[in-house]
Amino acid sequence: MLTLQARFQSAFAMQDFHTSPDFDAVQHAAARIAPFAQVTPVLRSASLDALTGCQLFFKSENLQRVGAFKFRGACNAVYSLSDAQAARGVLTQSSGNHGAAVALACRLRGITARVVVPRNAPAVKLAAIREFGADIIPSGTTQAERDAVMAEVLAQTQAEVIHPFNDARVIAGQGTATLELMNQVNSLDSVMAPVSGGGLLSGTAIAAHALDPAIRVFGAEPEQAGDAAESLRRGERVTGWIPDTICDGLRAELGPLTFDILRTHRAQILLASEAEIIAAMRLLWERLKLVVEPSSAVPLAVVMRHRATFAGRRLGIILSGGNVDLEKLPWLPAA
Amino acid sequence: MLTLQARFQSAFAMQDFHTSPDFDAVQHAAARIAPFAQVTPVLRSASLDALTGCQLFFKSENLQRVGAFKFRGACNAVYSLSDAQAARGVLTQSSGNHGAAVALACRLRGITARVVVPRNAPAVKLAAIREFGADIIPSGTTQAERDAVMAEVLAQTQAEVIHPFNDARVIAGQGTATLELMNQVNSLDSVMAPVSGGGLLSGTAIAAHALDPAIRVFGAEPEQAGDAAESLRRGERVTGWIPDTICDGLRAELGPLTFDILRTHRAQILLASEAEIIAAMRLLWERLKLVVEPSSAVPLAVVMRHRATFAGRRLGIILSGGNVDLEKLPWLPAA
Repeated sequence: MLTLQARFQSAFAMQDFHTSPDFDAVQHAAARIAPFAQVTPVLRSASLDALTGCQLFFKSENLQRVGAFKFRGACNAVYSLSDAQAARGVLTQSSGNHGAAVALACRLRGITARVVVPRNAPAVKLAAIREFGADIIPSGTTQAERDAVMAEVLAQTQAEVIHPFNDARVIAGQGTATLELMNQVNSLDSVMAPVSGGGLLSGTAIAAHALDPAIRVFGAEPEQAGDAAESLRRGERVTGWIPDTICDGLRAELGPLTFDILRTHRAQILLASEAEIIAAMRLLWERLKLVVEPSSAVPLAVVMRHRATFAGRRLGIILSGGNVDLEKLPWLPAA
Repeated sequence: MLTLQARFQSAFAMQDFHTSPDFDAVQHAAARIAPFAQVTPVLRSASLDALTGCQLFFKSENLQRVGAFKFRGACNAVYSLSDAQAARGVLTQSSGNHGAAVALACRLRGITARVVVPRNAPAVKLAAIREFGADIIPSGTTQAERDAVMAEVLAQTQAEVIHPFNDARVIAGQGTATLELMNQVNSLDSVMAPVSGGGLLSGTAIAAHALDPAIRVFGAEPEQAGDAAESLRRGERVTGWIPDTICDGLRAELGPLTFDILRTHRAQILLASEAEIIAAMRLLWERLKLVVEPSSAVPLAVVMRHRATFAGRRLGIILSGGNVDLEKLPWLPAA
């Protein structure tokens, strides 16, 4: 098994993980995914503006295909493959939206998707991965267990690995959301996205700073999964956090590449508590009339906690996704 | 009281209720409300298309201001008033979205709104009316009781009455949703809206047939509030139905004007059961990631019941509103 894992790690290392995508890569990604991805609307709410004291522009990636921004990165990665690579199929690991996104992108291209899924993945997200026709490969819940399964499948299939965030193709794809947003809305002075592995926030920073070097880039992170904030504070990547958050999309840690990008771009990570996130989620449902998952609500929770920081600002917020279990809303008592 | 009621009815009769607005009126309404109303996005879902066997284009009026299409008609009516009329303020009756819409439109114009509200109005809608600064005037729950209160207030204030649906200005305003939709989407062969008092469906029919005389116009109505279907079937306006539906926005009966318009335009009303409506509502939340109220789900419920009728069609659906009590979702057991 160690040998397999070593091969797996070396296959990872061979990819262009260590190089940040540039703005050109984001623009190419935008052209590549245009036939497949939705141009998602930017929504506003007069009452949320009044409540927060700033002007909020919500980029509604919950309305993206598969219900999350993840489709952008996965689609860009899948359509970046050569025909020879594509013929071997794609392999990834994901407990959620990235898995569904890779599954759909592969189905659109007509190639095989294999998704390693930990046994504790949310049922609603698992169902989506299956619905889009991917092969689901169950694994244990620790990163080591998942890596071991990945390595095994990789050895058997030589499939192309598409990492959920620590992959330049994926980061470039995620950056297209901000490219689109800044074409839809003039004169934003700040942008904010939730941060987990950092793929979305990295792409956000690259696109935003290319279009406006003076724009401020914020990440929003649950306190109880606060490794990114801690990593940037310390100046070194923190690993081994045990996240304990309702935000099932925000339990990963920064990768080496995303850590570097966020540090280079001086992204500022702000935190919110679980109660603040749930309250913000409910507000988004009530005022924006959007079904968003808890991860999507962290930016609004952050804005409400840090009123003074954002007072009067024109802030673009990426609403990352909308895949929730409609039987279990966090503000309702468990049935 | 009879005298007051007679005066009230005659005030109603003096308005241009008896004349259908034409397409010019819809276009004027569009220009009038443009500074205030949202251009709502048209959303699609590949999975709902697959599920229904047709191409569905959802005009997302739940994302309209006050969370419902009602803002269009109310805003058009309020901004149609002369300064002298406006100075006397506006009076209406509504248990829901129309009340909030009139309240907001009046606040935008800086005039007084008075809303007669039955005591059993949904709390979430009542809160919105209050939030937008209207004077709330409580009444009993029957139409007669509400009319009596209306007459009394009218006698005291000489306020301008804006009926929720049986008013040409309101109908023209509601028609702007379809005008917008048909500018956003080419080659629809059918449009569908929920029907209650018939203001939205009347405006829909007027706009749709002006832009494409061959387009088919469908209304969607809860079986348990099926007076419009019955009225059109009989060729005479049915009154006295006692609606029993979860769709709190669909409990009114057609008015004389809307009945005439729907008959003239040969609108076809199709029915759905309560269980079908709840299932469709849950699907819209899950697949479109939109918070919609039960009324908005009736068209999808109808499409799913009448698969053969809609197979292969390009159907525009007006999602009428998104004001729901997030503590009480109809697919969850009562807390």
